[in-house]
Amino acid sequence: MTLKDYAALIDARLAELLPEAEKKIPDTDEIPWLLENAMRYSVMAGGKRLRPAMLLACADMLGVDRAEALLDACALEMIHTYSLIHDDLPGMDNDTLRRGRPTNHVVFGEGQAILAGDGLLSYAMELMLQNAMAYPEHSARHILAMNDIMAGAGVGGMVGGQCMDLYCEREHISDERLLSYIHVNKTSRMLTSPLRAAAALAGFAPDSPETTALTVYGVKFGLLFQAVDDILDVVGDEKTLGKSIGKDAEEGKLTYVTLYGLEGARKRADALAAEAKDSLAIFGDRAAFFVKLLDDMTHRVA
Amino acid sequence: MTLKDYAALIDARLAELLPEAEKKIPDTDEIPWLLENAMRYSVMAGGKRLRPAMLLACADMLGVDRAEALLDACALEMIHTYSLIHDDLPGMDNDTLRRGRPTNHVVFGEGQAILAGDGLLSYAMELMLQNAMAYPEHSARHILAMNDIMAGAGVGGMVGGQCMDLYCEREHISDERLLSYIHVNKTSRMLTSPLRAAAALAGFAPDSPETTALTVYGVKFGLLFQAVDDILDVVGDEKTLGKSIGKDAEEGKLTYVTLYGLEGARKRADALAAEAKDSLAIFGDRAAFFVKLLDDMTHRVA
Repeated sequence: MTLKDYAALIDARLAELLPEAEKKIPDTDEIPWLLENAMRYSVMAGGKRLRPAMLLACADMLGVDRAEALLDACALEMIHTYSLIHDDLPGMDNDTLRRGRPTNHVVFGEGQAILAGDGLLSYAMELMLQNAMAYPEHSARHILAMNDIMAGAGVGGMVGGQCMDLYCEREHISDERLLSYIHVNKTSRMLTSPLRAAAALAGFAPDSPETTALTVYGVKFGLLFQAVDDILDVVGDEKTLGKSIGKDAEEGKLTYVTLYGLEGARKRADALAAEAKDSLAIFGDRAAFFVKLLDDMTHRVA
Repeated sequence: MTLKDYAALIDARLAELLPEAEKKIPDTDEIPWLLENAMRYSVMAGGKRLRPAMLLACADMLGVDRAEALLDACALEMIHTYSLIHDDLPGMDNDTLRRGRPTNHVVFGEGQAILAGDGLLSYAMELMLQNAMAYPEHSARHILAMNDIMAGAGVGGMVGGQCMDLYCEREHISDERLLSYIHVNKTSRMLTSPLRAAAALAGFAPDSPETTALTVYGVKFGLLFQAVDDILDVVGDEKTLGKSIGKDAEEGKLTYVTLYGLEGARKRADALAAEAKDSLAIFGDRAAFFVKLLDDMTHRVA
């Protein structure tokens, strides 16, 4: 199974969970058509499905029944999508385009976009709970998996990272320790929780060697993701927009490139990839998907 | 235990969960001071703590250890508060005052207010999951309770009701069936889920006579709450603002009063209270708190 294979599985299930809805008065307990369509618009806007694919691939690696992990994977993608919808709002980044399409609030209006985000976070939790109820013999495992996902997405995770990111931007603060908090919490945590959740579903304790190894991988992978983003930002900008490292540095923007220079950032990325790969030793050949993922990430061009 | 007694318990626990935070660089996994203070600002802004008190009172009535129910009760209040913060945003109702204090976005800015709302919903789920992990022998009960709370708060519940409410307001639609959906989902569901969650924690199945009776009570109580709101809105307005039933009717606003007239609305409220009281028969004298709650609700003046 490649990343694309997993993405196809997830796309299919997401499309079932959020079908295109016709306008009608909803029954009590029913999702209104407008909310469903607004949620669907952003969830089905494409994307690599990296986070849910990592959950499913890890579940496969650890011998979890894929059907038992699929709803949690979809929930994770919904949480990722809610964060993008809210991030794009006028009160946050005020972005009007994402993946080449108008952002949610441009299409549905600001109020409905806020609710589409709230709805996706809520629906994610509802789906994970329904999934947990479908496997009563694994209640404790599902609670632990949900806890990993919500800890990564929540106030000491992604939301906390977003808060500090917005704060630094608005107050023009560039502090290396704050930047590290933002990178780890905004990016790495949501790339670590899929692996921890899969380990929980497989019955591994949070402090087991397997879960610990996966956590190290997730954190390193997240930082690698960020480093490559920073590099592409400059390389891409130089080619297309004429922006330079100097400009980011002038603006006081802290990135891997402004911190270490372009070559230094590339070296740091290679080191992170090597460290992440080392952490997979415990899984031997079964970790092939995650070894390849590091390679793909290091060499991606967009 | 009165409503005020329960509210005091909840206030104390909420203040512990969201202590006033000093500005400092957060450690990984830590809630940033700014997010904590923004969440705290709205959670500790007062309020009757009606929903969590209903959960605790129902837990007491059904013999659940109060300590086991307290975090779920606090989570419910956080969910209620997140919905108020988002509802007040410029993109929604654009309110600058709530309970006599500036709204969250007026104090912390729009972006941080969006995140404070997201944070409270996330934190609510995180706390309920941590609570579930603390009672491994009751995993299934806790999953069911969380499911009741999230179903009431989620896309086929409160968020769905908010979506249709905003839609009707923006599109100037007044449809009696949509109004009913909005009332039930925006108001009643969040007053029913505390009771269903308490029943789940007590080990009652979702289709048990006890849970069914509590659901009937919650729905009727929610509609009573709405009817009294509508009545006070007119009575209050006539006294203080000179607004009249005629004005709401002219604006096409559908309320209990525009539908049934003031006296008709009062009769409807009395009927709802009587029906709610009848549903409590199965619990006998143990339901005293909930009988009194109906009386207090019917005769409240604000």
